[in-house]
Amino acid sequence: MTDSSTNMRLKLPIVCFILEIILIILFGVLVEYDHDTDAKLFNGKTPNSHGHGGHATGTSRNSTPQTAHNDYENDFYYRYPSFQDVHVMIFIGFGFLMTFLQRYGFSSVGFNFLIAAFSLQWATLMQGFFHGLHDGKIAIGVESMINADFCTGSVLISFGAVLGKTSPIQLLIMAIFEVTLFAVNEFILLSLLGTRDAGGSMTIHTFGAYFGLMVTRVLYRPNLDKSKHKNSSVYHSDMFAMIGTIYLWMFWPSFNSAITEHGDPQHRTAMNTYYSLAACTMSTYAMSSLTAHDGKLDMVHIQNAALAGGVAAGTAGEMMLTPFGSMIVGFLAGIISVLGFKYLSPILEEKLKIQDTCGVHNLHGMPGILGAIVGAVTAAAVPKDVYGDGLKKVFPDVASGSRDTSYQGGMQAISLAITLGIALLGGLIVGFILKLPVLGAPRDNACFEDNVYWEVPGEEHHHHQEELTTVRTEEVEKLNT
Amino acid sequence: MTDSSTNMRLKLPIVCFILEIILIILFGVLVEYDHDTDAKLFNGKTPNSHGHGGHATGTSRNSTPQTAHNDYENDFYYRYPSFQDVHVMIFIGFGFLMTFLQRYGFSSVGFNFLIAAFSLQWATLMQGFFHGLHDGKIAIGVESMINADFCTGSVLISFGAVLGKTSPIQLLIMAIFEVTLFAVNEFILLSLLGTRDAGGSMTIHTFGAYFGLMVTRVLYRPNLDKSKHKNSSVYHSDMFAMIGTIYLWMFWPSFNSAITEHGDPQHRTAMNTYYSLAACTMSTYAMSSLTAHDGKLDMVHIQNAALAGGVAAGTAGEMMLTPFGSMIVGFLAGIISVLGFKYLSPILEEKLKIQDTCGVHNLHGMPGILGAIVGAVTAAAVPKDVYGDGLKKVFPDVASGSRDTSYQGGMQAISLAITLGIALLGGLIVGFILKLPVLGAPRDNACFEDNVYWEVPGEEHHHHQEELTTVRTEEVEKLNT
Amino acid sequence: MTDSSTNMRLKLPIVCFILEIILIILFGVLVEYDHDTDAKLFNGKTPNSHGHGGHATGTSRNSTPQTAHNDYENDFYYRYPSFQDVHVMIFIGFGFLMTFLQRYGFSSVGFNFLIAAFSLQWATLMQGFFHGLHDGKIAIGVESMINADFCTGSVLISFGAVLGKTSPIQLLIMAIFEVTLFAVNEFILLSLLGTRDAGGSMTIHTFGAYFGLMVTRVLYRPNLDKSKHKNSSVYHSDMFAMIGTIYLWMFWPSFNSAITEHGDPQHRTAMNTYYSLAACTMSTYAMSSLTAHDGKLDMVHIQNAALAGGVAAGTAGEMMLTPFGSMIVGFLAGIISVLGFKYLSPILEEKLKIQDTCGVHNLHGMPGILGAIVGAVTAAAVPKDVYGDGLKKVFPDVASGSRDTSYQGGMQAISLAITLGIALLGGLIVGFILKLPVLGAPRDNACFEDNVYWEVPGEEHHHHQEELTTVRTEEVEKLNT
Repeated sequence: MTDSSTNMRLKLPIVCFILEIILIILFGVLVEYDHDTDAKLFNGKTPNSHGHGGHATGTSRNSTPQTAHNDYENDFYYRYPSFQDVHVMIFIGFGFLMTFLQRYGFSSVGFNFLIAAFSLQWATLMQGFFHGLHDGKIAIGVESMINADFCTGSVLISFGAVLGKTSPIQLLIMAIFEVTLFAVNEFILLSLLGTRDAGGSMTIHTFGAYFGLMVTRVLYRPNLDKSKHKNSSVYHSDMFAMIGTIYLWMFWPSFNSAITEHGDPQHRTAMNTYYSLAACTMSTYAMSSLTAHDGKLDMVHIQNAALAGGVAAGTAGEMMLTPFGSMIVGFLAGIISVLGFKYLSPILEEKLKIQDTCGVHNLHGMPGILGAIVGAVTAAAVPKDVYGDGLKKVFPDVASGSRDTSYQGGMQAISLAITLGIALLGGLIVGFILKLPVLGAPRDNACFEDNVYWEVPGEEHHHHQEELTTVRTEEVEKLNT
Repeated sequence: MTDSSTNMRLKLPIVCFILEIILIILFGVLVEYDHDTDAKLFNGKTPNSHGHGGHATGTSRNSTPQTAHNDYENDFYYRYPSFQDVHVMIFIGFGFLMTFLQRYGFSSVGFNFLIAAFSLQWATLMQGFFHGLHDGKIAIGVESMINADFCTGSVLISFGAVLGKTSPIQLLIMAIFEVTLFAVNEFILLSLLGTRDAGGSMTIHTFGAYFGLMVTRVLYRPNLDKSKHKNSSVYHSDMFAMIGTIYLWMFWPSFNSAITEHGDPQHRTAMNTYYSLAACTMSTYAMSSLTAHDGKLDMVHIQNAALAGGVAAGTAGEMMLTPFGSMIVGFLAGIISVLGFKYLSPILEEKLKIQDTCGVHNLHGMPGILGAIVGAVTAAAVPKDVYGDGLKKVFPDVASGSRDTSYQGGMQAISLAITLGIALLGGLIVGFILKLPVLGAPRDNACFEDNVYWEVPGEEHHHHQEELTTVRTEEVEKLNT
Repeated sequence: MTDSSTNMRLKLPIVCFILEIILIILFGVLVEYDHDTDAKLFNGKTPNSHGHGGHATGTSRNSTPQTAHNDYENDFYYRYPSFQDVHVMIFIGFGFLMTFLQRYGFSSVGFNFLIAAFSLQWATLMQGFFHGLHDGKIAIGVESMINADFCTGSVLISFGAVLGKTSPIQLLIMAIFEVTLFAVNEFILLSLLGTRDAGGSMTIHTFGAYFGLMVTRVLYRPNLDKSKHKNSSVYHSDMFAMIGTIYLWMFWPSFNSAITEHGDPQHRTAMNTYYSLAACTMSTYAMSSLTAHDGKLDMVHIQNAALAGGVAAGTAGEMMLTPFGSMIVGFLAGIISVLGFKYLSPILEEKLKIQDTCGVHNLHGMPGILGAIVGAVTAAAVPKDVYGDGLKKVFPDVASGSRDTSYQGGMQAISLAITLGIALLGGLIVGFILKLPVLGAPRDNACFEDNVYWEVPGEEHHHHQEELTTVRTEEVEKLNT
């Protein structure tokens, strides 16, 4: 299963080394500690607001009278637990969710690991650059770490669409471009348009899904059925995938609330997401059973659709959506997602030639759009006075009087269109770049197979079978004589 | 392995949809954000004490002079990390602990997921209802989320007793009733009797275990040995189960301390539980080896009994038990639990016809009772002045002078009896309800088998064996000619 | 696979019971709650600085004007999330990292569990004793829990070196001595020499690695190749091991920052480690591919070398290393570690007779030394004024004027030498103690095999093969007649 085109011996080291050396140089030139991580700034100055980073527009930490920088008010203590939950989602959640394939576990976890480690560094630079340099420098801290992980999540969603059909070099190239475009789109939405999208229904999920779907469309393989027998799960691989699912499910409340404003918005977002996911799980089980001819539950649905409630609560989660509204959103997301896996994915593959390995359209695409719409409607429909003085933390532009709620809702809707546009156009271009044969994509009959890029150990039970074979052969020979 | 009685195609969707729609309607009518999650209330009022939720009797967050609601004092930051640890225990811990069966991994994790997602919603309502409406509404926040997860834990303990022998519909029906009775029992103990049970030795573990044991008694299957060959582990299933065990073990300190008062009680509870578990692990290994004829360790003991120290520290953990006392409690819990698995469980099955799949009696039942007794003794025996001014956070009724420590100890003991009574009576009734044939229980020869309710993928190594068979047959045929 | 020498039936229970009873007695005599966990002290006194525990030299929590002990300033809220991350690394991280062997998963996770549960109790006493009794008592809280887990980590590193070749009794004996020597070394470095080593590049990693390497050298087995076929991975065991790897990788920022001073040092340490690990992952993938003749990635490298960046940032992580410096350190650590696995480990085994099962020399040994050197250089080279007023939190002795930065750097370098000396000498002595035949080490042909100390369940697919065998035999017999 080794051929020269997929041999990574020179290509992969060169790409990794060059990328990392560029990153190191750029970090040396451009990056500095922010006010909460620098020994001198933290202890020597009165604190400033520091609104770098992607999603949050500025923390409200200085609402109490200031005396001096207090160690216990370091943003570390109010963001780091959320960061670690997000971190687990990125590396365990996404990584193991994709291990469902029978012989692609090393690649699923391992390539996830590689491209995430690259993307979080690159995203630090791109997001820092697009969201404003301070004296020519990018100031970083826990909030930028969360934002970098978020951007990485978007790349990993796209990875799900092309899973099993790409080389690690292709994935790194994809990550370079996708991170960049993610930062551009995020900048347009959050900074230029004043859109709210704390949990990234648009910026992360919709963007990552449609970008990946377009890439996999361009990389369409008419003869992918040569690897068809590998493109399915086995019992244990489904169990490993459930580790990913459950971690994503549990920590999604932390994901959606990780970079909201402090206080009630963060608390509310986590709780809304919690109930959205619970309702989504109920409708997922119902639909999975309903759409099976014998009523049996399908692991594909449980592993994926039960998470759609988190995606769909990504925009409106910080708003006054209420648990009631959150549950309705999650309930619908689960239904849409299962229907997508059951009926839409086969059509997309047959008619539109979109080979979406993990079904990211059903988990991130449609639920992301649903989340964006819910966000626009919630922004427009909930009266200002429901928020009271808390309005400035959720809709600062509405609170300042520079726009009204329906204008905010309109901006949210426009943001969805922009996101779809950038994702599809970006995916189109990047897809063609990835077609370069030098990038080492696997052959049609070697997709979904770790063996192409990994040393794979023998299976223990082969020993038994070999012994068995030996014994049998001897007996057969004895019979022959 | 499909027959009409276990076909869930219509039944499960109908049950899930109806339940979720009822939940959504009730949430719409009854539930509102609390003072820490509502944008208006949080930012517009001076904070009130908000003692909703089950176990805690009111937070002491307002001990410093009040100026205004500070974003950094939102209870989110002081409870949410504990909540997430508890959440992991519920979904990963319980879910994977039960995957030890060789062909029941999908159901263990998957049904755990389903009934937990339902129970946490239903528990929010039941606990909110029994612990007092505010202006006709249930106000929710991170504390109610922890309490809902706690109640869910109780249902999952009962699930352990009936594991492998029930349909998902039976489990949902069980959850409906058990959550309700849990809330009743919790209300009697914590609100009416002023009992302390922060980690739920009584309310969660004793209740869940004896409820489940009674249900499985009523559902007794005389011909369960038809599925005997499935009622055991294989190598990899034991490894998956260890994931559950280790997560439960690690996060138990967070579990027991999640809804204690803030400050020293939360800190102390976590630490007491940490040492109780460490001592329990030592005695578990000792007993597992001692009770095996060849001295070999038994995975069943390690997976379960090593956790008994957490259960047994559930009531007294917040008290001035000292690390010394905690270690004695854990040490005893490990011994009792292993002895239970080795000698008592077979007797319970043979004589009392209690088929306790996971041995919840040994992990949650007896250690829960031990924990309740330790709690009563500690409450009664430790002099008031050991607590100093901290007494009001642990025993507010003693601190206020309305009862003395021995009265408190007596109440704790009575609470154990009440819990046992409600659990056993409730389990009896619910067990008979679950006997309804329409609920789709598996046949005696199809227990402990995912295939009944799940699409199960083929095993990879079957391919090899089929090839082997083919080759052999050909050779044999060649010989014949 | 049972013989009398490895039969643990009496030995293991006796050792466990005696050890635990001694621990309980010593805890009863020596241990008390600290100011943050005691009900009376916490609520009754003005807070003191309480600098017990190993690595931190005193918290700076009282920098704001004191009024009274505030529940929200309890150190629990500022350390416990870090503690839980460290806890996961100890029990899941180390435990599962070692499950890569095909038939040693029960032992890897199970013995890891046992010796960690013992070590954390014993470490509480040893560290408390060496770092100063208060009125004859050891005062404990969340910081001492973290330190106990750290010390445990060191023992588990040594476990990695001897993995598969030792009985649980040998491991417990090793832990007794190693914990003690760890506390001595830590005391010399942190208390006597004023060395900084927040993440333990020296005290934890270098110490644990060289101690374990010397132990395995003394326990050299010339006929270990009798177990050679077991000393390798299978597909699923590598997947389980990746769970350990990813958890270690994700939570290493919490590990290195868990007991730094509060505020900017903790924040900075976590961030430096995050970038060091990301860079290390990139160079690990590059080197793994580069050093394989066919360019295929090797799971051994990914599982281990990608973590070296965390080890190497253990000392300098809290200093003003900058993300730029951190990335360079991580980049180099990954390269060194892969080269070690590929070229140095075989030499160590052949020439120096060091059978290092997990390659701890490559993951903890060399990267630990690198980290110590980086720490010494960073301490000496970064000018004082870069830290501003924050200097006292990182280098209190330099801030107080009692030493200059180059003196501090010199102390850091001397500390590395002391650590190596104590580790090697200690390992030598303990190695000879472990050679006692009564301790029940496995035979040369039974290494890397769970079956020696564990009840191991049959494999499901054996049933199929037995059926196959039966059928074949019948057919062959039929042919014979």
